[in-house]
Amino acid sequence: MTRTVLESATRTVTIGFDEPFCVIGERINPTGRKKLAAELEAGDFSTVTRDALEQVACGAMVLDVNAGVVYNSNPDPNLTEPPLMRQMIDLVQGLVEVPLCIDSSVPGALQAGLETARGRPLVNSVTGEEDRLELVLPLVARYKVPVVAISNDDSGISEDPDIRFAVARKIVRRAADFGIPAHDIVVDPLVMPVGAMATAGRQVFALVRRLRDELGVNTTCGASNISFGLPHRHGVNAAFLPMAIGAGMTSAIMNPVRLVEMEAIRAANLLMDHDPNGAEWIRLSRVVDAVAQGAGFAEASRAAMASGAGGGRRGGRRGRG
Amino acid sequence: MTRTVLESATRTVTIGFDEPFCVIGERINPTGRKKLAAELEAGDFSTVTRDALEQVACGAMVLDVNAGVVYNSNPDPNLTEPPLMRQMIDLVQGLVEVPLCIDSSVPGALQAGLETARGRPLVNSVTGEEDRLELVLPLVARYKVPVVAISNDDSGISEDPDIRFAVARKIVRRAADFGIPAHDIVVDPLVMPVGAMATAGRQVFALVRRLRDELGVNTTCGASNISFGLPHRHGVNAAFLPMAIGAGMTSAIMNPVRLVEMEAIRAANLLMDHDPNGAEWIRLSRVVDAVAQGAGFAEASRAAMASGAGGGRRGGRRGRG
Repeated sequence: MTRTVLESATRTVTIGFDEPFCVIGERINPTGRKKLAAELEAGDFSTVTRDALEQVACGAMVLDVNAGVVYNSNPDPNLTEPPLMRQMIDLVQGLVEVPLCIDSSVPGALQAGLETARGRPLVNSVTGEEDRLELVLPLVARYKVPVVAISNDDSGISEDPDIRFAVARKIVRRAADFGIPAHDIVVDPLVMPVGAMATAGRQVFALVRRLRDELGVNTTCGASNISFGLPHRHGVNAAFLPMAIGAGMTSAIMNPVRLVEMEAIRAANLLMDHDPNGAEWIRLSRVVDAVAQGAGFAEASRAAMASGAGGGRRGGRRGRG
Repeated sequence: MTRTVLESATRTVTIGFDEPFCVIGERINPTGRKKLAAELEAGDFSTVTRDALEQVACGAMVLDVNAGVVYNSNPDPNLTEPPLMRQMIDLVQGLVEVPLCIDSSVPGALQAGLETARGRPLVNSVTGEEDRLELVLPLVARYKVPVVAISNDDSGISEDPDIRFAVARKIVRRAADFGIPAHDIVVDPLVMPVGAMATAGRQVFALVRRLRDELGVNTTCGASNISFGLPHRHGVNAAFLPMAIGAGMTSAIMNPVRLVEMEAIRAANLLMDHDPNGAEWIRLSRVVDAVAQGAGFAEASRAAMASGAGGGRRGGRRGRG
């Protein structure tokens, strides 16, 4: 029974084979969002605030926080990321109760995040690259937190799923040397765009099953990669997520402010018997009705949660004064 | 390599592990459609005509034909069904080119259908009930056609998936006694409503994998049963179908005139590497755009097919004079 336990100051989220799919909100990330990067450089955290509140309202159970800015005033991320990570985590954990995922490739930023985050955050990420293993695993071991392990190594990202599996196994073994148990490793088997590699979907489904059966680890992915370059991407994502969940995937780093994808996940939870009495599905169906009548997804979700029935247990938000 | 080959006079459809999911259109069925039953009694076949054309336009690869009326003028189905089945099959195979599925519990109607249908139709269905086995299997053997095998027997429908598996195995073995090969048996493992039985989804996914791995048979189901009694049923169906496809389900008897479900199937085909170059997905994405702008699904599908790109190969329709 693999259980990866994440905690905030007040809330516990378990990623596991017998748990609802864990949605990790990806939006608090200035990478590729120039406007957000400029705001952060100017000390404006209004977008971060909105993204935190909206994602949790829409059903994010964990929030990823990435401070990967390149300031015009200072292009060195080793200097800019750690203090910004600290600020962002302070802000976000004051706004919402969900556990956080500290997302950086800068060791100093991971360290700053781990010092600042309350509870038991998830570290995002380590890879199979030698220098990453040696930099990140000691930190993970010291703070006794779980970590996302991405299946690429010094030779890059292999198109061969057997090699990606072998990289994941190497990370799990190396982590064990540091005293990090397999249940604290959440493997990202790497999702390729199915438009570029026709076998991408099948590969991931097969890999997820192997990672679960042979390594006993939880899994995650950047779900929207699967549809990169295709028309009508949300339709592809909305089939991919239930199929991945059926294959055993237990979490994804994704945009939860998208009704189509969240609906697919709620339905998959129901079909996996991870939604007692269908309470979450019934709540979601009211959100769907409200959105059909013109409401925004976040707004309709807040209303459905406030009405209490079936909701509030997960993804809820309360002010923390 | 299990391949169940269906044929019309001009077209072959293969149900198989390495084929696109086979959509069997369910609409030509007066059961529970009082208006249609009354029309048929009055000799009015306009709804059958429309249902045949629309279903094929929307992507049905096979059409189920059920003549299960109870006429006010004659309540004996042994007398009413056989001639009506003949008439309906004659009509439908004159309108569309897809293979047919002859759907009846009346042996005389199955016989009439088998005499009338050109090519290699699918018989729907036999169960594990002794009298059904002895009535239907000889007919299936005589015409050398494939048959849907439903996993219930004289003790009814078991809630225990192991028993449903055992019933399927019994049918496969009994069929072998009649010279019917396993690849001509398409097992329906029976889909329970997940709203009534929380494990219904997991049961089916596990059963489909077993049926495939241990008996080597293709599978089908009445897909919409899964969402019976739930709000926002299409959302549940649209996650169930990709998950079932991921588990190895190879066909479903369903309403294809529903964009949400058909979109889920097209996306699942793409993700299973059963859509070369994504041609069907690209065509579907144009249909989605047209529907978003107010077109009907059947109408938009016809237009996308007529434009040629990516489509026409499956589900196409040409007049046959």
